Amino acid sequence: MQTDEQAIRELVANWLSASKAGDTDTVIGLMADDAVFLMPGHPPMRGKASFAAAQANFKPFSLDAVSEIQEIEVFGDWAYLWTALSIVVVPAQGAPPIERRGNTLSILRKQAGKWVLFRDANMLAAVPE
Amino acid sequence: MQTDEQAIRELVANWLSASKAGDTDTVIGLMADDAVFLMPGHPPMRGKASFAAAQANFKPFSLDAVSEIQEIEVFGDWAYLWTALSIVVVPAQGAPPIERRGNTLSILRKQAGKWVLFRDANMLAAVPE
Repeated sequence: MQTDEQAIRELVANWLSASKAGDTDTVIGLMADDAVFLMPGHPPMRGKASFAAAQANFKPFSLDAVSEIQEIEVFGDWAYLWTALSIVVVPAQGAPPIERRGNTLSILRKQAGKWVLFRDANMLAAVPE
Repeated sequence: MQTDEQAIRELVANWLSASKAGDTDTVIGLMADDAVFLMPGHPPMRGKASFAAAQANFKPFSLDAVSEIQEIEVFGDWAYLWTALSIVVVPAQGAPPIERRGNTLSILRKQAGKWVLFRDANMLAAVPE
């Protein structure tokens, strides 16, 4: 029997592997319908359709991401997750890679027995070359 | 009898008024001993002493802040809080004000019957003049 913490670790791993593969459909399946994404300098991005539209405009040559889970706390059907995340995006063949690094703080919900992302605070910042 | 949501709204109001007054002792009293502050471009700031040290290096001429609470969800002795926050800092007499605006996502805990800040994700960004 998988614990909630194990299920949340698996959610993070699946999110990263699908993101690296450019598999937006799988990523969308890991979030609540009414998920909200918060980041500096942008208004809140609400819902699966907004996320999918943003991804459609973002087709890098390659993306690598490493997530170090700092903390998971579960409260029944709710949880929060703190990670240290590092992303390297290669925009197109020949262009220099862009590295972003920082912390994320997320609220997760268990819906119909499955953990999904509900609120996401993204504090990644560009790493100077 | 005050509800948990009312108590959390009061915590936010007290935090803002104490911050505006430069009353760091009061702000420190509104956080858990092991509170962690996450923001872009900086490592996590851990604990009351780190917060107090950062405030000691930050003595503006004036600070104004407006917080619009977007969401509060309570799970027993835990809660999360999403706010849209706007801060205007006047660094010193004559210097131009600095405005920062954005969202915050925080984890709160009820300790000994009192709500305190436990994890804080700060996504404020500079607002162009």
